[in-house]
Amino acid sequence: MRTLTSESLNPAILKVEYAVRGELAIRAEKYRNDLKKPNHGLPFDRVISSNIGNPQQKGLDQPPLTFTRQIAALTEYPELLKTGRDLFPKDVVSRAEELLEEIGSIGAYTHSQGVPLIRRSVADFISKRDGHPSNPEHIFLTAGASAGVSLLLSMLISSPKSGILIPIPQYPLYTATLAQFSGAPVPYYLDESSGWSTSPPAVEAAIEKALKEGIEPKALVVINPGNPTGALLSEETQRALVQLCEKYSIALLADEVYQANLHAPHTHPFTSFKRVVRDLQSPIALFSFHSISKGVSGECGRRGGYFECTNVPDEIVKLIYKMVSVGLCPAVSGQIGVDSLVRPPKEGDESYPLWLKETRTIHDALAARTKTMAARLNALPGMSCVDSPGALYLFPKLVLPEGALKAAHEAGKTPDTFYALALLDRTGICVVPGDGFGQRDGESHYRLTCLCAGVDEYVGALENFHNDFMKKYGGV
Amino acid sequence: MRTLTSESLNPAILKVEYAVRGELAIRAEKYRNDLKKPNHGLPFDRVISSNIGNPQQKGLDQPPLTFTRQIAALTEYPELLKTGRDLFPKDVVSRAEELLEEIGSIGAYTHSQGVPLIRRSVADFISKRDGHPSNPEHIFLTAGASAGVSLLLSMLISSPKSGILIPIPQYPLYTATLAQFSGAPVPYYLDESSGWSTSPPAVEAAIEKALKEGIEPKALVVINPGNPTGALLSEETQRALVQLCEKYSIALLADEVYQANLHAPHTHPFTSFKRVVRDLQSPIALFSFHSISKGVSGECGRRGGYFECTNVPDEIVKLIYKMVSVGLCPAVSGQIGVDSLVRPPKEGDESYPLWLKETRTIHDALAARTKTMAARLNALPGMSCVDSPGALYLFPKLVLPEGALKAAHEAGKTPDTFYALALLDRTGICVVPGDGFGQRDGESHYRLTCLCAGVDEYVGALENFHNDFMKKYGGV
Repeated sequence: MRTLTSESLNPAILKVEYAVRGELAIRAEKYRNDLKKPNHGLPFDRVISSNIGNPQQKGLDQPPLTFTRQIAALTEYPELLKTGRDLFPKDVVSRAEELLEEIGSIGAYTHSQGVPLIRRSVADFISKRDGHPSNPEHIFLTAGASAGVSLLLSMLISSPKSGILIPIPQYPLYTATLAQFSGAPVPYYLDESSGWSTSPPAVEAAIEKALKEGIEPKALVVINPGNPTGALLSEETQRALVQLCEKYSIALLADEVYQANLHAPHTHPFTSFKRVVRDLQSPIALFSFHSISKGVSGECGRRGGYFECTNVPDEIVKLIYKMVSVGLCPAVSGQIGVDSLVRPPKEGDESYPLWLKETRTIHDALAARTKTMAARLNALPGMSCVDSPGALYLFPKLVLPEGALKAAHEAGKTPDTFYALALLDRTGICVVPGDGFGQRDGESHYRLTCLCAGVDEYVGALENFHNDFMKKYGGV
Repeated sequence: MRTLTSESLNPAILKVEYAVRGELAIRAEKYRNDLKKPNHGLPFDRVISSNIGNPQQKGLDQPPLTFTRQIAALTEYPELLKTGRDLFPKDVVSRAEELLEEIGSIGAYTHSQGVPLIRRSVADFISKRDGHPSNPEHIFLTAGASAGVSLLLSMLISSPKSGILIPIPQYPLYTATLAQFSGAPVPYYLDESSGWSTSPPAVEAAIEKALKEGIEPKALVVINPGNPTGALLSEETQRALVQLCEKYSIALLADEVYQANLHAPHTHPFTSFKRVVRDLQSPIALFSFHSISKGVSGECGRRGGYFECTNVPDEIVKLIYKMVSVGLCPAVSGQIGVDSLVRPPKEGDESYPLWLKETRTIHDALAARTKTMAARLNALPGMSCVDSPGALYLFPKLVLPEGALKAAHEAGKTPDTFYALALLDRTGICVVPGDGFGQRDGESHYRLTCLCAGVDEYVGALENFHNDFMKKYGGV
């Protein structure tokens, strides 16, 4: 018999790339296992996974919110409402009882679109945030934002000529999903020199170029706050983007999973695209994504999130329902996580003081680390770095010496992969090379998270490595 | 601007059908909401969702296993290991501590393939079950079996000429996924007259027919125990199917999610395809699926499961890893559910007596209900029913009177949909018409679960409805 080979598989699969869990992450995993052996011979004693926005990962320091976890425990094991009731604050107990009353057992499938009560909570959250109504029937709870993005792209791509506008640099979920479903990526470039800003004329130029090439633009993806850039869009830019979608009849996919990760909310606030679309009374179809994985929640492992459909005709909402129903329902623990995200304790609730303390600590730590890291990386020779006002990342630019470019070429690696591998080999710090996100030809970047505690020691290791690397390859 | 319409979407999406959550389920949901109003005017006071194998659904009677939920609560909120330690059995405490030691926070992303410790637990379970070794590196934890099936079909379908052999009747996940990824379903018919048995010559005839039509058969899907049929394959049949896969170089997808739902294990035992493949030393590529949603676990809402790759080349395993990494990881609560499934309490553990009592009660209730329901449905005029030895369902055949066929035609419905809608309207019992699973032309069936407590009252309602329906349309 013939053996199953990759040649016999769906050729689109072979084109999928996802750098966040790619070569670097696989080598990091190997080192993590090697470190368990005595005499491992590695020049570091732990691997730090700065490649992925995973706040609660072992070795990082973002603890879960007590409120979220208490509700989770009570809904998992309702017997505790009898035997251990006194161990929980009153508001937590009543929230758990309310959820159990609605859901019954969390071991049961829910409505495929998500528990109705929780969708109503999400709609309340959105309408309070934006000052515009939100309809629970137009909200889909998902297994994280990724699942929703993947589903909607798979629906929007009707042929290899279907174009999806994506920022460069972008979170590689988009290029991976476009490769999987054989859509045409239509890149628009963000401007590093102005803090990774988005230029509506550049987006329009990308649309016009695509149209000339016979590509039909179907959707514009905007990530706000940006990933990997951490940039925040101005409302003026948002309005211009909505108007472009209107002009070209393009749907807007607003990836807003970092909306609660704001380091300078007074100078760089977050405005949802839902608000902008409604303020403008624009008829464009908008899909807005949010997640429990980021923000102060950081509950990546629960796989919870949602998307809201705005101006999406009922027949399409019904089709989306049909598609999600094949997958039955998102994990209920993730759905309950969404409820805790959008209905945190209120002032006066027994849980409130602890919740406030915990969330402030997380916000402050992330903002302080981001600032320190940006400042110190910026001070290094051959490195420059936008001081991100949002999200969890920095995306420094590298200007590497000729010797390094030559050595990378000889090793068969892009310069940023070569740099990132050397960094991992020396320090145990795993980052993602810029080519995984996209960048201008000839440029080099890498993305690292700002989640590691002990920022002095951490940046110190980055600095030492970088200085030695530059010295070795003749850069200083 | 042009509005987003279904015509502009991926045309494959429009072809997807998933009857389990289709027209009937949507009407049932409406009735469930109507019942909350006073003076609802409905002739029943509750909706019974017999359309879906959802054991812990409100109103049904399969409780969660205490062991599973205690571990879930402790891993959700580890503080309980201090404040409420005495509320939990010792083996539960030590299991939770072991899992937390490995995982850290369950709010963190795990390895995309699943937590290594849990994959080792799964491999132990498989090797004990089959008497053949199992490699944790070849196991992928998934968000239920559906997610794994969908992923693998999306990889195996390389063109619209890629054929996937599916049983008829089948669980509609398969036809839905084939429609979504534009593969060619190659049906093989199960034989109702011999207890829904699978005939290897019929499978081979289906392969030959496909080949003549220019279809390239890529995989054979076998559901064992069957869904919707509840049939169990004999080892002889399994061997013959493996040999067919070998002869035609076809991968085998073994959907074994009902392996623990056996009502007559002495006469109808379960043998895994992994065992058969290894016993035969066959080189065929086998993907075996299991889930925490069924069996005595019944934890549908957690979305947990796994698949094992047997004889799958490393390059393909790496591609699968790449694809699952884009989705980051399965929900950790589902992964922990898998651990509880494959590592239940052992004799001597503090949890064991309760676990044994709970699991026996579930097994006994399901077996008794299935037997009673099959016997009583079989006694009805115009209805016959294989007494399923496994899974959660019955799939009775209807021979409807001419008057009913005519009325169905006039209503624009298939006869079984017409019947099922009438049943729902009268009794509140929601079942799935046979055309959702596939059946021979001109036949009518429906699938109902055997999960509803109070079997006398439940079957009584079915009987009354059926007798009146037959009378109304001249069948008796």
